[in-house]
Amino acid sequence: MGLERGISFVPLFLFLHLFIHGGVGVEIWPLPESASNGHHTLVIGNDFKLNTHYSDSSSILSDAFSRLLNLIQAPHVVEANISLFHHSLILQGITVVVSSNNEELQYGIDESYKLSVPSPGRNQFTLILRVIDVPLVPWTIIDQPRFSYRGLLIDTSRHYLPLLVIKHVIDSMTYSKLNVLHWHIVDTQSFPLEIPSYPKLWNGAYSATERYTIEDAKEIVSYAQRRGINVLPEIDVPGHALSWGVGYPSLWPSKTCQQPLDVSNEFTFKVIDGILSDFSKIFKFKFVHLGGDEVDTSCWTLTPRIKNWEETFNDFGNKLSRKTVVHNWLGGGVAQKVVESGLRCIVSNQDKWYLDHLDTTWQQFYMNEPLANITNPKQQKLVLGGEVCMWGERIDGSDIDQTIWPRAAAAAERLWTPYDNLAKDARTVAGRLSHFRCLLNLRGVAAAPLAGPGRGAPEEPGSCYLQ
Amino acid sequence: MGLERGISFVPLFLFLHLFIHGGVGVEIWPLPESASNGHHTLVIGNDFKLNTHYSDSSSILSDAFSRLLNLIQAPHVVEANISLFHHSLILQGITVVVSSNNEELQYGIDESYKLSVPSPGRNQFTLILRVIDVPLVPWTIIDQPRFSYRGLLIDTSRHYLPLLVIKHVIDSMTYSKLNVLHWHIVDTQSFPLEIPSYPKLWNGAYSATERYTIEDAKEIVSYAQRRGINVLPEIDVPGHALSWGVGYPSLWPSKTCQQPLDVSNEFTFKVIDGILSDFSKIFKFKFVHLGGDEVDTSCWTLTPRIKNWEETFNDFGNKLSRKTVVHNWLGGGVAQKVVESGLRCIVSNQDKWYLDHLDTTWQQFYMNEPLANITNPKQQKLVLGGEVCMWGERIDGSDIDQTIWPRAAAAAERLWTPYDNLAKDARTVAGRLSHFRCLLNLRGVAAAPLAGPGRGAPEEPGSCYLQ
Repeated sequence: MGLERGISFVPLFLFLHLFIHGGVGVEIWPLPESASNGHHTLVIGNDFKLNTHYSDSSSILSDAFSRLLNLIQAPHVVEANISLFHHSLILQGITVVVSSNNEELQYGIDESYKLSVPSPGRNQFTLILRVIDVPLVPWTIIDQPRFSYRGLLIDTSRHYLPLLVIKHVIDSMTYSKLNVLHWHIVDTQSFPLEIPSYPKLWNGAYSATERYTIEDAKEIVSYAQRRGINVLPEIDVPGHALSWGVGYPSLWPSKTCQQPLDVSNEFTFKVIDGILSDFSKIFKFKFVHLGGDEVDTSCWTLTPRIKNWEETFNDFGNKLSRKTVVHNWLGGGVAQKVVESGLRCIVSNQDKWYLDHLDTTWQQFYMNEPLANITNPKQQKLVLGGEVCMWGERIDGSDIDQTIWPRAAAAAERLWTPYDNLAKDARTVAGRLSHFRCLLNLRGVAAAPLAGPGRGAPEEPGSCYLQ
Repeated sequence: MGLERGISFVPLFLFLHLFIHGGVGVEIWPLPESASNGHHTLVIGNDFKLNTHYSDSSSILSDAFSRLLNLIQAPHVVEANISLFHHSLILQGITVVVSSNNEELQYGIDESYKLSVPSPGRNQFTLILRVIDVPLVPWTIIDQPRFSYRGLLIDTSRHYLPLLVIKHVIDSMTYSKLNVLHWHIVDTQSFPLEIPSYPKLWNGAYSATERYTIEDAKEIVSYAQRRGINVLPEIDVPGHALSWGVGYPSLWPSKTCQQPLDVSNEFTFKVIDGILSDFSKIFKFKFVHLGGDEVDTSCWTLTPRIKNWEETFNDFGNKLSRKTVVHNWLGGGVAQKVVESGLRCIVSNQDKWYLDHLDTTWQQFYMNEPLANITNPKQQKLVLGGEVCMWGERIDGSDIDQTIWPRAAAAAERLWTPYDNLAKDARTVAGRLSHFRCLLNLRGVAAAPLAGPGRGAPEEPGSCYLQ
């Protein structure tokens, strides 16, 4: 088995397990750019090895390889007597060819890869044992993402998400090749992150245990990076900032009017500067998200010293810096206006890609096309990708898995797979998505059944593949 | 820190983490027999060690110790400079004294323990750093279970539960000291377990991947045993046996009448013998559960060759062998009749301890007293304990966690804690149970909020401790 990567090898393992699934046919999710296969079966040897010339001094590659092996071994205890297999039937390992030594995970990194699995040799024979098999060999897969930004938003202000839960979400993202964790850290309700420059901001946390230390945040960033995922941090200014004033009441327009931030107060900008400065020590991604949504300006109008303040594209489009990326989380049609004005855009229209909208079905997630009505190729390139949003009003460690999955996976295929390979009718991919959902369950991700609304329980007894 | 155990040390680690929780007061769940504490704080050293004279050749003790350390380190990244602490404030390790070398986990094993945490030395001073602290020292806890059988039923016939999911459930059981996993393996809908004596029984599985091999089952038993949990296997005869006939149609009364089992056919008893024989190679627990519930006898009446067959206590109480343990999964009052007749009993009355009844609240789980109306001490001893039942009609890998927890924990305290320590009004323990639920979330167990029905989502933003 051999694999060649363009520049970064990080998402290598994200792919491999997708076709090592127990022999139910070609059920890869998301679909690659191109794939061809045969009709033979190979088995994975007991000491399946990683071979590479890459130095791997930070052990990113070998760690990913170990995780992959654990993952494909998780569904069953394997007790094969491998000596019963003819040598030509056994895959002894994988050879990984890495084209660049640059391990920095940044926006726009080359995520392409080529995967080859050989045919068995001539003297093959068949034996049914409990082994891990690789069906339908030989395989040749050539693949790369359609969009470079494929995100999932999590919200740790409405409910605190424990460190283990966030790591679990990161692991689950890799299975459908999402590559940006948009961390909506702070909002009206709580301020859970330690900010050393302004340590009292933390007083806005729900409790002493519902907090992230700087070390926790660094751990999340590092954990994600080693899995090919960037963390996009967000402080939502100036609208949703009630929790900021718990420690620093002067950030509020007044005691009775506690958001948005008092933008007439110089201290407000010092605090924002301090947060961004601390962010730069934690987060490595080239973008920071500044929220800017749902600014209720009535407090400003009622507080005479506060002047008007400029924020989102809908009001101020042409005044925004060309470096701005506009995150469209309102309705459809906004992306079109953004790229017409020459700005870059990330699509999350709330009627289609908000996971907390339980009545939005996986079919609607699948069919939401980021380039809808954008036909000019230059403008198309300004759409960096999209992201699904797991707003946290009714989400915590108890229900985040099944609210995210499998609907986020439907969007992930839209963002990864070449347009021409995407289904024109979502119903035709239901079986393959159902298979992917069962695979998530086998790996301990509590993805919900496809039937019914988001986060629905199974409706009746039956096979996982039929729900 | 020192700990003395009676005979088995297996559930040692189940206890320790319950008071190492981040300093929110005495929030132990389930409550021990007796506990006293002080008002000082110690911290756990960077190289917290296990000290023991026990040989631990099977490494049960050292594995449990490693799991414990991982568990208490999971909520936060710890970056303490331990050298800043005075020596007298640091717990360097735990000394475990084991009273018996017998590692066999059997029914009725001594689960008692004594735990001591010392006071800090004299020269203490305070420093606030990010460390793992042990609050309210010194501690002396003397503890043992009220009932020896504290079970949870899982159902792998209505929906297949992946191996990783079952292991996750086992881990979560240990946190509230449940000690029997009742595995309702087979039912009308599917027959997922490999039975080498009658290999076609497996044809009744939903699919090729929704099966447990013998090796899978052994892995589950071993995984549970090493965590102090016995696995009680069940084949539900003769009522719910449609799936048996997929591979062996002669087990059915007729093609049109497919359950209960044809008890006029000698082959039926050969198959049951074969299953029990194979079970004896997999399962180590001294009990096997034979179901016996909900036998619809109409097929027998309609099929002339089939004679009457004897089964459950309600009909045949006095004819049952004295070795029988009756599992009461009907209404209240049955346990009373069972012990009056001199038989042993396990309580799971469906109006109170069925987890799939989402409208049964945690308060009802908590208040369900196994010895209700049983006042004779000899008869009380015949009640071995009880079990909560997670029937699988609408349960799979996507929703099992939050349907089990926290309600099963409410029952677990009822089964563990001495009667006099139990709350007379469930409302008085809501805060402590809520704290335990948040602890489960911190450990990656998706326990639902206390408010509302079973498996409810959080109703609005807020602290975990208030939901």
